Amino acid sequence: MTPHQDLHSALARLAQFNDDPDAGGITREVYTPTYRAGLEYVAELMRAAGLSTRVDAFGNLLGRWTGAEPDAPLVLTGSHVDTTLNAGRYDGTVGVLGAIEAVRALRDAGFMPRRSVEVIAFAGEEPRFGTGCIGSRALAGDLTRADLGRLRDRDGVSLARALAEAGLDPDRLTDARLDPASVYAFVELHIEQGAVLETAGEAIGVVTAIAAPHDLRLTLRGAATHAGATPMALRRDALAGAAELMVELERLAVASPTGSTVATVGVLSLSPGAINVVPGEVALDVDVRDVDVAARDAVVDAMLAAADTIAARRRLTVEVETITRDRPAPCDALVVEAVADTCTALGVSHRRMVSGAFHDAMVLGPHLPIGMIFVPSAGGVSHHPDEYTAPEELDRGVDVLAATLQKLAA
Amino acid sequence: MTPHQDLHSALARLAQFNDDPDAGGITREVYTPTYRAGLEYVAELMRAAGLSTRVDAFGNLLGRWTGAEPDAPLVLTGSHVDTTLNAGRYDGTVGVLGAIEAVRALRDAGFMPRRSVEVIAFAGEEPRFGTGCIGSRALAGDLTRADLGRLRDRDGVSLARALAEAGLDPDRLTDARLDPASVYAFVELHIEQGAVLETAGEAIGVVTAIAAPHDLRLTLRGAATHAGATPMALRRDALAGAAELMVELERLAVASPTGSTVATVGVLSLSPGAINVVPGEVALDVDVRDVDVAARDAVVDAMLAAADTIAARRRLTVEVETITRDRPAPCDALVVEAVADTCTALGVSHRRMVSGAFHDAMVLGPHLPIGMIFVPSAGGVSHHPDEYTAPEELDRGVDVLAATLQKLAA
Repeated sequence: MTPHQDLHSALARLAQFNDDPDAGGITREVYTPTYRAGLEYVAELMRAAGLSTRVDAFGNLLGRWTGAEPDAPLVLTGSHVDTTLNAGRYDGTVGVLGAIEAVRALRDAGFMPRRSVEVIAFAGEEPRFGTGCIGSRALAGDLTRADLGRLRDRDGVSLARALAEAGLDPDRLTDARLDPASVYAFVELHIEQGAVLETAGEAIGVVTAIAAPHDLRLTLRGAATHAGATPMALRRDALAGAAELMVELERLAVASPTGSTVATVGVLSLSPGAINVVPGEVALDVDVRDVDVAARDAVVDAMLAAADTIAARRRLTVEVETITRDRPAPCDALVVEAVADTCTALGVSHRRMVSGAFHDAMVLGPHLPIGMIFVPSAGGVSHHPDEYTAPEELDRGVDVLAATLQKLAA
Repeated sequence: MTPHQDLHSALARLAQFNDDPDAGGITREVYTPTYRAGLEYVAELMRAAGLSTRVDAFGNLLGRWTGAEPDAPLVLTGSHVDTTLNAGRYDGTVGVLGAIEAVRALRDAGFMPRRSVEVIAFAGEEPRFGTGCIGSRALAGDLTRADLGRLRDRDGVSLARALAEAGLDPDRLTDARLDPASVYAFVELHIEQGAVLETAGEAIGVVTAIAAPHDLRLTLRGAATHAGATPMALRRDALAGAAELMVELERLAVASPTGSTVATVGVLSLSPGAINVVPGEVALDVDVRDVDVAARDAVVDAMLAAADTIAARRRLTVEVETITRDRPAPCDALVVEAVADTCTALGVSHRRMVSGAFHDAMVLGPHLPIGMIFVPSAGGVSHHPDEYTAPEELDRGVDVLAATLQKLAA
């Protein structure tokens, strides 16, 4: 294992680009002045590592190490440097700064790639605009001009306006589109964001597939009546119906035959929200994920059927809106085996595993060969100031990434 | 049935004292300038009906019709004219304006009471300061000087400050205290706030007991982990635990042997509240009521035991805070029979029933003989702009109140 002090310094320095330091964590949302300043710092690191940089029409930052065969399909690697609100310093950044470090290490070791290697910092993996992975979606051609007007952040700022304010031209969206034939493989280094590696005591996760979310908003409506004066039999309690539905949703996810289905209600709002009033309306944001789309959608379908049954019995109505419905992405054997062989060659403990979290790799998956390398997350904590991966775990991840890039680009 | 046009006009006029007319309902919180202006209008109505008025140290408005035996214990009647936010025009006001109208009608009919009759508008029945019925609590001697500093409204204004700003002296709190021996009986006319009378097609509810709330805040804490990367088996999902608890709470209330137990979760807040994060913390405001305190507390105890079991199984912690724990108030046979006999004599359809909602009568119940007269609420709707009781239903309520006062004061 090689110590990668430059990476650790860069992680600490990038963490200074922070819109809310008093909160204890890091807030660096895509396209903000703070983000752009942080991205410029990353571009400087890229250039210092000998990469030639450019920012595409959507704000994705790319740094290229031109190979001996410049026209051969290249090896792409990277992640993102935007954050959620009050987040940690590892999610995404490890994959960008780690890739720069891997390139530097390969170059220092005298390696000359046949294929070009390109390091990317995707714009907006975190869902400032409701939908995540907008940078990779732009590369994949999955975003339309209409989406740029429709997608808005919590302050109502449209993606189009945010792009314009960041000096980018929303009308040049299609310029960001990537020709899949120009890419040989994409590999992304990332923290696990779960506790599987830590629990198993293993150093590296070789990702075999990336689960994708099916996100829905369910709104249950009953009657907001007096909590004292309405006998149990006369109630149309939207929250009591939601509670029954949440219990059933959990049961369905646990019983799903793949063993990898997860279901979460992360947001619940109710109205009117007074202790002496039966809730007349409840909205639930439901997230169901699996690497197996059939298993995932079977849970969603069963949940919706349960919602109808529960609502009919309780004299509630149900409204369902789709928020996101992504396709799970299997990783490509080319990349999976390159990562696994590298771990074996380096004598690094590893396991094949699925990614429950989505990543830009998921978006690129349908278009080109992808793979991911996970390093452990302490306690599985992520999107939180306590997010942590030890320096030696990061060093191991960079070593595996560097050797994988060497293998793919040779 | 006598038409009471003055009452209908006064209800419409009082509804003009409104801090938020654009919302469609009525907002007139206790001690605000709008409330004080409305209360002065009520005082004028009292004086026009021949009552001599005074405002006590806590802001309760009283209007007295002195009887032939001024030193005999008096008959007290009334309710409140403060509202919740964006409320209807009947809750409380019917009991104050209806009492003034009943006095006017009795006087017009040539009745001369032996006992004095006093009409009261209690200050702050609605929970602007978290706790309801503060005016009647002051009369009952249930409030301390410390409470005045401790109780705060949603803007952080203490009850003490609100009193001072309304020109009242918080240090004279004990001056408002009522000598129970000075009161023969208290009777309160009120809208039902439920749909029992409407469902049964009956005109008057003869209240036999007033249920009291046991209100608690339960906080469940687990771990806010990634909704995708945390397998079901590794979760400590506070909301999933809360859902299971809410299902159990509903089951316990329905199974309670009295048939009058009700349980409600009217407020639920969760943290961090993102669709891709397992909720790490959920706070529930739970309200359990019954006229039978043993049955009510059995439900609360069983719920707390269930919370511990659920939390242990799910690796959550539970914190419990008591918000309110009032004593249910049985109505006094003196008043119950006076109201029931009056209904029979007037040929008005009626039923004996419990009040699920609490009222100022509940607070006075431990100290003096109380009773209540309910008129129907359309659809059981209350604390809402759609709150409605038809004029002829109000007229019938005033007739029953007037005849009851006549019986009690003779």
